[in-house]
Amino acid sequence: MTKLVVIGGNAAGMSPAAQVNRRAPDLDIVVLERGLYTSFAGAGLPYFVSGAVPSSANLVVRTPQEHRARGIDVRTGHEAIAVDPAARTVRVRAGDGHDYDEAFDQLVIATGAAPIRPPIPGIDAYGVTVVHTIPDAERLDEWIRTRSPRHAVVVGGGYTGLEMVEALLDRGLAVTLVEKRDQPLASLDVDMADRVSTGLADLGVDTRFGTSATGFDTEPKGWVRAVSTDAGDIPADLVVIALGVRPNTRLAVDAGIAIGPSGAIATDAHLATNLDGIWAAGDCAESLHRVSGKPVWVGLGTHANQHGRVVGLNIAGIPAEFPGVIATAITKVGPVEVGRTGLGEDQARAAGFEPVTRTVEGDTRADYFPGTAKIAVKIIAERGTKRMLGAQIVGGPGSAKRIDALAIAVWNAMTVDEFAQTDLGYAPPYSPVLDPSLIAARLTGDAARSS
Amino acid sequence: MTKLVVIGGNAAGMSPAAQVNRRAPDLDIVVLERGLYTSFAGAGLPYFVSGAVPSSANLVVRTPQEHRARGIDVRTGHEAIAVDPAARTVRVRAGDGHDYDEAFDQLVIATGAAPIRPPIPGIDAYGVTVVHTIPDAERLDEWIRTRSPRHAVVVGGGYTGLEMVEALLDRGLAVTLVEKRDQPLASLDVDMADRVSTGLADLGVDTRFGTSATGFDTEPKGWVRAVSTDAGDIPADLVVIALGVRPNTRLAVDAGIAIGPSGAIATDAHLATNLDGIWAAGDCAESLHRVSGKPVWVGLGTHANQHGRVVGLNIAGIPAEFPGVIATAITKVGPVEVGRTGLGEDQARAAGFEPVTRTVEGDTRADYFPGTAKIAVKIIAERGTKRMLGAQIVGGPGSAKRIDALAIAVWNAMTVDEFAQTDLGYAPPYSPVLDPSLIAARLTGDAARSS
Repeated sequence: MTKLVVIGGNAAGMSPAAQVNRRAPDLDIVVLERGLYTSFAGAGLPYFVSGAVPSSANLVVRTPQEHRARGIDVRTGHEAIAVDPAARTVRVRAGDGHDYDEAFDQLVIATGAAPIRPPIPGIDAYGVTVVHTIPDAERLDEWIRTRSPRHAVVVGGGYTGLEMVEALLDRGLAVTLVEKRDQPLASLDVDMADRVSTGLADLGVDTRFGTSATGFDTEPKGWVRAVSTDAGDIPADLVVIALGVRPNTRLAVDAGIAIGPSGAIATDAHLATNLDGIWAAGDCAESLHRVSGKPVWVGLGTHANQHGRVVGLNIAGIPAEFPGVIATAITKVGPVEVGRTGLGEDQARAAGFEPVTRTVEGDTRADYFPGTAKIAVKIIAERGTKRMLGAQIVGGPGSAKRIDALAIAVWNAMTVDEFAQTDLGYAPPYSPVLDPSLIAARLTGDAARSS
Repeated sequence: MTKLVVIGGNAAGMSPAAQVNRRAPDLDIVVLERGLYTSFAGAGLPYFVSGAVPSSANLVVRTPQEHRARGIDVRTGHEAIAVDPAARTVRVRAGDGHDYDEAFDQLVIATGAAPIRPPIPGIDAYGVTVVHTIPDAERLDEWIRTRSPRHAVVVGGGYTGLEMVEALLDRGLAVTLVEKRDQPLASLDVDMADRVSTGLADLGVDTRFGTSATGFDTEPKGWVRAVSTDAGDIPADLVVIALGVRPNTRLAVDAGIAIGPSGAIATDAHLATNLDGIWAAGDCAESLHRVSGKPVWVGLGTHANQHGRVVGLNIAGIPAEFPGVIATAITKVGPVEVGRTGLGEDQARAAGFEPVTRTVEGDTRADYFPGTAKIAVKIIAERGTKRMLGAQIVGGPGSAKRIDALAIAVWNAMTVDEFAQTDLGYAPPYSPVLDPSLIAARLTGDAARSS
């Protein structure tokens, strides 16, 4: 009997385990998870902190018990500490502290990513936390409930940072956002990010762009009381560190698994690593970017799920390829919705394209319809070919998921001229007669003629 | 100097007029409009009746005065009564009753469509109306304000019919819907339409499917008091006829312009008719259906706008082709949102495909997120090739515009397998980690293997 070992019990690990369990029931499956949870929605953590989601248990898609009931041997509290590709074993540290070797025929590395916690003074103070796991979020929630903090500082203005800003505002705290770049959401072009900055200011957030946290000052009992920055101190009863994540690759590196240019595990089209019978999926693995044609590391839950399925099919003997990503992402902060896909303007230039862009400010609904909101749609196209390279949206309610139609257009390498003539849904409660995305494509098409 | 005459002052007529005015300022432009309004949003009429849009003036995108200020000679109250292609003249009946000939070099026929008013007894009674123009909607609004009707009957369960059902419910009336088919929204497959029927029942609408109106009974003063049907009488203080529209082609037919198999004006890829220098746009004209490859008549405001632009560019000397339609349409009735694109199951069969379909019931948001609603996504694919032929959505708030991503996939003739692996936006307030559309594509792909 062949044995599959999976390292990591979140989506990228449990998805191939479930695929194999369903499609190749003869295989033994062992999943090693160093934490206590499987298959939880990390993207939902800010909404547990905000109070929108009443219990952290709501975020668990499937518990270890549920996986076990389906015949998958899930071992929580079991950390893989080394992989021996020649011996085909994983060295495991069990919850009770003893180590043992687990043999495998096929191995999936789904070790995920770890939040960045820079070694600045005071980062281990009470009241300072990342929000990456359910225990992180529960601890933060408890702090808010029991210590009644009034002023929070969020360090880092990426997706998680902004979602935590919203969550803390929802909990009634005053929030300062510290971001070393001059804009929030580094994956947005600066002109679009500026619209988000305006939205943050409208929500009463004290935004400090171009500012780096240099330390955390504490009270005598060890609780944080201020964030030191290169532009002065900011009082804080609570600090959320949201500086992004890094792929967990130590195990792979030590085993001789190749790392790609992005710093994550290199994979081929089947998501196989350079070592036979060893696969990588999720936040620890690279993906091909369909527009740049280069390997990238993005780290989105959608990709983790899609990766996991492809790996599972391949292990189950059903050849499957991963078609790549275009890094579509959406978020919101208060009433401001954000969507992006493909390459931004600078990314396009870096990938060797000559980008042409146009931004349209339109309405989410017919302009006469109650509740209509402003929406800005930016399209990035290649001069001459007019190929759509990317798109970005910032607007009011009803804006974010509009990125999906643009994403499918970018995925298919449509030209802006062709996209401008497509047939999208129109009804006054949901759109002007021509969706703002179509107008943006028209204007970009006019601008993107060969110079 | 060359002269362009446009017959019809709504979107399909004013759009080419505006294009030509901007891009070929040397051309003289005369627009003949028999009514008093130009460029109004017909799709907004139900929302004026409902009270959501406070004034019918809000629905006018651009008034005749505004068009004239831009240099377009718009003549309202002027009806084109005949076209002489050989003499290159249009016979015009002016508002004062006198007739004259207007010469043209280029002619755009944008005569639109007329609501179907079957010759059944009593259809001209007071209290019975179609809702096709601003005066229609204003009259209906006045009836509701001044006569305090309590019970309305809507005859016809298409898009306009359902939107009028919603509008009348919003005005506090009890509403009965009479529809001769066994389902609302004939462009939906019956299984998806049944979900809409359930939604109507949940709203308290008395639905009478498989029932035909046979007459309108009136009070002595001529006001409607009941709708007679083949299944008994239904008391009514107010009746809205929403039996669809028919293309206005009489003028074209009389001039020798070819009509296509759909009954609307036949056009080539440039939207030229069979007569040199005569073009057709909007609800009076056919379009190529990109999936069936056949000419169809759909009659949507989106197409009217897109048609108009293509015609305008061609007349301005910038060659442009109309790429065809996939009949994407969205609507809502109460909290129930509807979207459809491409071919339905029966339409696919009629077009010569062997359709395979799957329907997924999912959530509009992460299932743990407050305010999540049920959404059903059906995908229609071709067996063997797995090409996406169409898709339909019925669900709660946040459902309708999801059809756009599916529309772009159908537009590009993607396979369900490829669509299932695309990269759509995910955030818990807006979507499960894998959008229900992707799950529906996966299942359809599994089912659509060659048999």
